[in-house]
Amino acid sequence: MPYDATKLKDWQISEEAEKNMPTPWDWQEKLGLQKDEILPMGRLCKLDFMKIIDRLKDRPDGKYIEVTAITPTPLGEGKSTTSCGLMEGLGKRGVNVGGALRQPSGGPTMNVKGTAAGGGNSLLIPMTEFSMGLTGDINDIMNAHNLAMVALTARMQHERNYNDEQLARLTGMRRLNVDPTRVEMGWIIDFCAQSLRNIIIGIGGRTDGFMMQSKFGIAVSSELMAMLAIVRDLADMRERMDQITVAFDKSGKPVTTGDLEVGGAMTAFMRNTINPTLMCTAEYQPCMVHAGPFANIAVGQSSIIADRIGLKMFDYHVTESGFAADIGFEKFWNVKCRFSGLKPHVSVLTTTIRALKMHGGGPKVVAGIALPEEYTKENVGLVEKGIPNMVHCINIIRKAGINPVVCLNAFHTDTKAEIALVREHAEAAGARFAVSEHWAKGGEGALEFADAVMDACKEENQFKFLYPIEMKLRDRVALVAKEVYGADGVSWTPEAEAKAKMLEADPKYNDYATMMVKTHLSLSHDPTLKGVPKGWVLPIRDVLIYSGAKFLCPCAGTISLMPGTSSNPAFRRIDVDPKTGKVSGLF
Amino acid sequence: MPYDATKLKDWQISEEAEKNMPTPWDWQEKLGLQKDEILPMGRLCKLDFMKIIDRLKDRPDGKYIEVTAITPTPLGEGKSTTSCGLMEGLGKRGVNVGGALRQPSGGPTMNVKGTAAGGGNSLLIPMTEFSMGLTGDINDIMNAHNLAMVALTARMQHERNYNDEQLARLTGMRRLNVDPTRVEMGWIIDFCAQSLRNIIIGIGGRTDGFMMQSKFGIAVSSELMAMLAIVRDLADMRERMDQITVAFDKSGKPVTTGDLEVGGAMTAFMRNTINPTLMCTAEYQPCMVHAGPFANIAVGQSSIIADRIGLKMFDYHVTESGFAADIGFEKFWNVKCRFSGLKPHVSVLTTTIRALKMHGGGPKVVAGIALPEEYTKENVGLVEKGIPNMVHCINIIRKAGINPVVCLNAFHTDTKAEIALVREHAEAAGARFAVSEHWAKGGEGALEFADAVMDACKEENQFKFLYPIEMKLRDRVALVAKEVYGADGVSWTPEAEAKAKMLEADPKYNDYATMMVKTHLSLSHDPTLKGVPKGWVLPIRDVLIYSGAKFLCPCAGTISLMPGTSSNPAFRRIDVDPKTGKVSGLF
Repeated sequence: MPYDATKLKDWQISEEAEKNMPTPWDWQEKLGLQKDEILPMGRLCKLDFMKIIDRLKDRPDGKYIEVTAITPTPLGEGKSTTSCGLMEGLGKRGVNVGGALRQPSGGPTMNVKGTAAGGGNSLLIPMTEFSMGLTGDINDIMNAHNLAMVALTARMQHERNYNDEQLARLTGMRRLNVDPTRVEMGWIIDFCAQSLRNIIIGIGGRTDGFMMQSKFGIAVSSELMAMLAIVRDLADMRERMDQITVAFDKSGKPVTTGDLEVGGAMTAFMRNTINPTLMCTAEYQPCMVHAGPFANIAVGQSSIIADRIGLKMFDYHVTESGFAADIGFEKFWNVKCRFSGLKPHVSVLTTTIRALKMHGGGPKVVAGIALPEEYTKENVGLVEKGIPNMVHCINIIRKAGINPVVCLNAFHTDTKAEIALVREHAEAAGARFAVSEHWAKGGEGALEFADAVMDACKEENQFKFLYPIEMKLRDRVALVAKEVYGADGVSWTPEAEAKAKMLEADPKYNDYATMMVKTHLSLSHDPTLKGVPKGWVLPIRDVLIYSGAKFLCPCAGTISLMPGTSSNPAFRRIDVDPKTGKVSGLF
Repeated sequence: MPYDATKLKDWQISEEAEKNMPTPWDWQEKLGLQKDEILPMGRLCKLDFMKIIDRLKDRPDGKYIEVTAITPTPLGEGKSTTSCGLMEGLGKRGVNVGGALRQPSGGPTMNVKGTAAGGGNSLLIPMTEFSMGLTGDINDIMNAHNLAMVALTARMQHERNYNDEQLARLTGMRRLNVDPTRVEMGWIIDFCAQSLRNIIIGIGGRTDGFMMQSKFGIAVSSELMAMLAIVRDLADMRERMDQITVAFDKSGKPVTTGDLEVGGAMTAFMRNTINPTLMCTAEYQPCMVHAGPFANIAVGQSSIIADRIGLKMFDYHVTESGFAADIGFEKFWNVKCRFSGLKPHVSVLTTTIRALKMHGGGPKVVAGIALPEEYTKENVGLVEKGIPNMVHCINIIRKAGINPVVCLNAFHTDTKAEIALVREHAEAAGARFAVSEHWAKGGEGALEFADAVMDACKEENQFKFLYPIEMKLRDRVALVAKEVYGADGVSWTPEAEAKAKMLEADPKYNDYATMMVKTHLSLSHDPTLKGVPKGWVLPIRDVLIYSGAKFLCPCAGTISLMPGTSSNPAFRRIDVDPKTGKVSGLF
């Protein structure tokens, strides 16, 4: 320790570190938990959320530290690695630190992206469980979600086959009159299954369901996953579980899971998902993994539940928001913190020389293709031109009243002159700054970073939302576009504007969150515009309604809820040792 | 204890009994296991099969007791209840007893049937976990199975979009040339989802998969579940995982999971399924739950793996075979025991006065409708006329060289005269006989039964297969039809006969098991023929081939691999207490 990350692959580091990984009962002792607050699951465990939050409800919260990033390259700039590195650095300083990260989907694991959280010496372990379903939450979501579709499609069949009198006699149910052309919900599966993106179901006779178009999405795009990330407790989940809009009836009224009488059974399948799973970094700082929602139609971050108990158990609790500061942090700020009532102290802005060079006009960065020389050799000029993106992101964080810490996630190709320039501009913009070498050195490499964060935590902050909950939808979008993205204004398609007006007029939607859908590859809606785009207008072409999660999603970009499996997928290289049961080939 | 089963529902008995349920670590001590042989999963645990079998490989096996039934009414005659009752009765006698039962599917839990194993005082606990996915094996099967379909359909898309040169360059893969009209495998989901029975997938453009017909089956009908029940260990599973026939290519050759390079990743998803889950009876006898395959296209019983470690851990190991003696027991005898190499000592023939009366000509028994008076009042005549079915089943067991014990699963409406008659005929046919009141009284009610089984275990038996493995397929079917079902002969459709000839000629199929597909509601293929049908011929209309499980399934009946959800499904009544997380409404 640290491991030689230039020679060992992540799974090899995980395997080494697993040898001394604490058992569930070690964690019980270390975290001062009661025996029945630990729910062991193989060599991992879940934490009984309701028992822990009830016992610790009067304990003061620890420091709440969020990790976000500047606008990234398509390779990502290492928010998870930086989150793990921060936990390790704080761990080396001897403080009581922990965190919460998202659970990945099985789709990328079996396709091309891989699902390690962090990397090198800043890694969540054990990697095999993490990559392959963890303790089953996604499976539970899959069963609960698909049960709603079973309920809907069986109901449509029976309503077609029986008249009102038969229906009342056989089932005691009223006719829902679902409009088959307005079924909103699809089925889910946790793979990249492009063949199930658009399907026709119910082919056959009277007892073979109801023939109509349908669709599958990837499991983590489910509204149930969106809900898991933002519910406060099981009662909140149960209430929302009846409110999901599955379809519309022939008069245009929503048909919900409650109308289908399936919310209770769905919650029954989800009952264990409210308990976060405990993993740890390669240096054994505890880190919960809980929820893994999309960052477009959902918050893209781990759960409120995990943050609630993390802040009770740890003096410093680290959490990461998906995508970049304009998307992930904005949702953390105005949605997650509003739902949770929790106040963050510090936001870490993960920055790389690579991304700054891209914003400064460097050549296109493409996954799977070697980086052009501009990125691997010193080029102070490109860095300087790219710095406005970082400054813009620092300013976003400052608008929330939170203290920003810029963490330069160090690469061995970074030069002193490049780093000095970033430090100068970060500090001039009012942020603390630290270089961190957690990937190569673990906590030892993250001490300056940890110190900067602890220092920032000591300072008072004036956390405030960007908009009050009373603000109308279109005003909110205008404010986010201007203050967060730097747009000149917002344009609405006639359909989107009509929908927005309807939503603003209906008090039912008053307490719904505004969940922006936009690329994270640019501050604008156009992923090719790097740096800080000027003179542009944010185009909104639809507003999606999620009535279980209580999200209104103004769409400034397209969304695919079902990725495709590539021509050279990872499953080809995954295998099991038949003697030990060990999985190989994950990355 | 015993609980008043006439007043308490099964879930209430379970909830009471759970209060004193042993923890995983209690089980470790009770069963003399090593700490690392226990894999805790919440309040349950899995047993590490490979570690246990390796440590205990030289310990002599305990007594191996199978539980089957006479031809049942559509209500079932209580094989699971009788299995639990036997464990409880043996437990009261102070012997070291345990067992293995099947895991139920989520489909029936959410539909009409319910999934309790046993009932009254002879019940597996805890019921909630049992009914709702247990420790995740079915989810693992679902992911592994569907990954094969993702691999297939993505491959078909890429082979359509790329020419040979592109394909080799991009993926290093050869063209498989799958015939889209000959895709054998479907997708799975663990619900009764009739709307997914027949579907069209891949609608859209170049990157939206491959458009073709497809289908979903219920998860427990998966070939992977069939395999889980009969593999000897993980190495056996890994080898079979490459052999599953997914489709045929345009020249008619099978395309397997191995050809798709997905067998390793599928096994990775299945790696934990080889470890049985430990539950217990309401009187705390240990009982593993492992695998839940269909009883038509698969063995319909719990796993060889569970029986292998059960026989090492317990002096008496109880296992149940699905369906009745002609189907379930025949598969136990000629398939499961042949694959496992294990020798059973005793078979219990579960018998009820109700079923005997039906075979004697009583009115039709229909689920959900009150039993006609013939079944609730004394009617010695009907019982007497029905007894030949029981005698036929006793003779099936005797042909295997196993000692039969008839267990009369007592109902409070049974009369002394009726019971005396059954006893007389059972003993005359060469079986031991016991009345058992385990439902009402638990182990105290099953002492006579336990004694009869222990007594039968003391006797030598001459276990032998019905046919040698060298026997050709059609000869095997003829023998089963005549010796087990009592048919006059077998008729083959021309297509089925051609397929049989092909299979007999190909040495690849020499070691495949013969897995009969037939109703369990009659000894014949016609479910309306009760008693012991005479003068009939078994019609075989197809032979299904499962090359991963290595099963040839001659079909003397139709098979539905996807049941439908009824108009009044159970999910309507299932809910969760938001304070405690307890599930209500299961039955």
